[in-house]
Amino acid sequence: MQAKIITIGDEILVGQTVDTNATYIAKELNAIGIKVSEILSITDTEAHIIKSVDAAMEDNDFIILTGGLGPTNDDITKKVLTDYFDDELVLYPDILARIQEFFIGFNKPFLPVNKLQAMLPKKAEIIENDLGTASGMLFKKGKTLTFSMPGVPFEMKGLFAKFIEIVKSKYALGDFYHQTLLLAGIGESYLAEMIKDWEAISRDNGVGVAYLPSIGELKLRLTGTINQKEFIDQQIAYIQNTYPNYVVGNAEDKLENVIGELLLKTNKKLGTIESCTGGALAQKIVSVGGSSAYYEGSIVSYSYLLKENLVGVNKDVILKEGAVSEAVVREMAEKGRLKLGVDYCISISGVAGPDGGTEDKPVGTVWIAIATENITVAKRFNFGYNRSRNIQASVVAALNYLRLLMTNQI
Amino acid sequence: MQAKIITIGDEILVGQTVDTNATYIAKELNAIGIKVSEILSITDTEAHIIKSVDAAMEDNDFIILTGGLGPTNDDITKKVLTDYFDDELVLYPDILARIQEFFIGFNKPFLPVNKLQAMLPKKAEIIENDLGTASGMLFKKGKTLTFSMPGVPFEMKGLFAKFIEIVKSKYALGDFYHQTLLLAGIGESYLAEMIKDWEAISRDNGVGVAYLPSIGELKLRLTGTINQKEFIDQQIAYIQNTYPNYVVGNAEDKLENVIGELLLKTNKKLGTIESCTGGALAQKIVSVGGSSAYYEGSIVSYSYLLKENLVGVNKDVILKEGAVSEAVVREMAEKGRLKLGVDYCISISGVAGPDGGTEDKPVGTVWIAIATENITVAKRFNFGYNRSRNIQASVVAALNYLRLLMTNQI
Repeated sequence: MQAKIITIGDEILVGQTVDTNATYIAKELNAIGIKVSEILSITDTEAHIIKSVDAAMEDNDFIILTGGLGPTNDDITKKVLTDYFDDELVLYPDILARIQEFFIGFNKPFLPVNKLQAMLPKKAEIIENDLGTASGMLFKKGKTLTFSMPGVPFEMKGLFAKFIEIVKSKYALGDFYHQTLLLAGIGESYLAEMIKDWEAISRDNGVGVAYLPSIGELKLRLTGTINQKEFIDQQIAYIQNTYPNYVVGNAEDKLENVIGELLLKTNKKLGTIESCTGGALAQKIVSVGGSSAYYEGSIVSYSYLLKENLVGVNKDVILKEGAVSEAVVREMAEKGRLKLGVDYCISISGVAGPDGGTEDKPVGTVWIAIATENITVAKRFNFGYNRSRNIQASVVAALNYLRLLMTNQI
Repeated sequence: MQAKIITIGDEILVGQTVDTNATYIAKELNAIGIKVSEILSITDTEAHIIKSVDAAMEDNDFIILTGGLGPTNDDITKKVLTDYFDDELVLYPDILARIQEFFIGFNKPFLPVNKLQAMLPKKAEIIENDLGTASGMLFKKGKTLTFSMPGVPFEMKGLFAKFIEIVKSKYALGDFYHQTLLLAGIGESYLAEMIKDWEAISRDNGVGVAYLPSIGELKLRLTGTINQKEFIDQQIAYIQNTYPNYVVGNAEDKLENVIGELLLKTNKKLGTIESCTGGALAQKIVSVGGSSAYYEGSIVSYSYLLKENLVGVNKDVILKEGAVSEAVVREMAEKGRLKLGVDYCISISGVAGPDGGTEDKPVGTVWIAIATENITVAKRFNFGYNRSRNIQASVVAALNYLRLLMTNQI
């Protein structure tokens, strides 16, 4: 079964709004085994809506539309669809009563324009919107079911949940299956080279393989049918078991959450001493709600002076080895651990760029260390020329380094 | 002139990735007067790519493609486009040399698969990717220019900037004129209400007005033709002169750069003491290259203990007033200023959420203070329920607060 998602409205086409609705709908459809063939954003003109719906009719079982259902003049979706499906708008008294109640609840005057929201297509199935005044509309033509919803995200989500229930009850779904792993510490081409036989076996078995890279991280996804579940699970387990050093978790996991769980489970406290990343590591760690249970804080010792005065790094070591050196990150981690009173202290010092590179330590050179009560480990990385990329890559590398240390993989 | 954006890759269609690339591209195209007719996300199959490009050829001057240019087997865009445009892949030695250098820079082995990245269409214009190994490719057919870029956002942005320059130099887009102001500290609807007469005058003169909000900031854009330049400049100057407290600068300015320039000009040093923002403020400040000239660093005192032990906040004050209070942020800023040895010290303490709110201090309550040698100022904000939004809004508010203080507007 296949669906096309169509988002109506100029705000996406002028780049003012990111189309998170489409992402949400796609995820939900995939979860019940409906493949999304295309996602399309169009202007709210009659010609454009008709052309797009008409084209989608050709090869889709479902067409999901969002947007253009407001009470104002520029919202034309309802009228256009009603005409397209040879339907007519009639007053639904029960919907009108509900909308009036809605306005009373919000203590707002009920305007004539709001009554229009109860004028709905006669033959379509009307899905009540519990969170707003624009109803969902379900049109049937040939084998295709077309569902139109407002674009306001929380209203859309409420209506779409109802749509999913209707679809589940009417169709035999679930022939689609996928699994995704999150990896860190390895690039796309290296992983592909390393697992090329595994990839060939997957493809030979009709299972799709996709590499989805982001800075410092990489997702590896297998896609097939429910009949291939066992094979897909086996293939995924093989990667997990063979490369635990690279595998952070499943698609829903994030490195910062995985670290958080490890720290909570072992009842350990974390602190950080940052230089070139300038607080980005701390920021990633506290992006997890509840991180105050295991994270104490950070010293962002951006200047030499703070490294010396606040962290307590030996001035002679900085002068002799330079701030970006193994000796200095080790001191930062060790002295920092005591200053912050934590079990694990991560330190980072590097040349983020664009300036400050030397032949020995070009832009992108980053030293990361982690100190515990018993041991201090340190490693040199090189992330290349882009400042913002260096900062992000350093943060991922540091968190992954901690993950490896905490899971005894260093 | 009209463009269609096509995003290639399953990650969007399965709902794993939000298509922020399309939003970025749409915004940039609109800024130079190119209208986006449609945004389409498709699977990475040959048939789908060809069908979509072919359909887009009909009525678009530009087709912008992202994705499917990686070195792995699932990336087929380059091959498909090369065939579609009757071109052939040949080795570009200079690109190969650059890619090899790239790998040397990263200190990583150069794999045979990476050499494929230097195999590029012969007739197409190749746009070098300074931030990765997949080149941009510009194909011309009839009146339509098709530009293919990798989907990794920061690589895409680098390449797309080059594309924009090419388009600007080749096409007469010059009858189009726009000016944009960056504002902070005021919301969209309040600004619109405040300047409604100004907006009406702009519209009456045929000049388009757009409000482009982001978290804590707002861009105000006027769009017209080059003949309206004088009028547009006057209108912009009016806003700048009437509301200097809200106007940060032009569209290219960023709050963190404006702060940096003010600090450099006055030869002052900045430091920060953060709690709920967890390093996000420091990170924004150091995102500016060369910020080490005026930024000393930060203490991210996420826990009570660090506020007390590291910053030196009086324990009794924390216990009596709570960590999120005027008294505590004032102490954080004042004691922090001395600890960090800086001229200006910003401190932030708030309830980022999702937990930790009380009736007095609901989630979103944030106190910000700035201490100088002579004065300490403090202000309470409320940013609402979303954790990540609270953190971002706090950072913007803190930087804007410093801007106001340094320009004698507090």
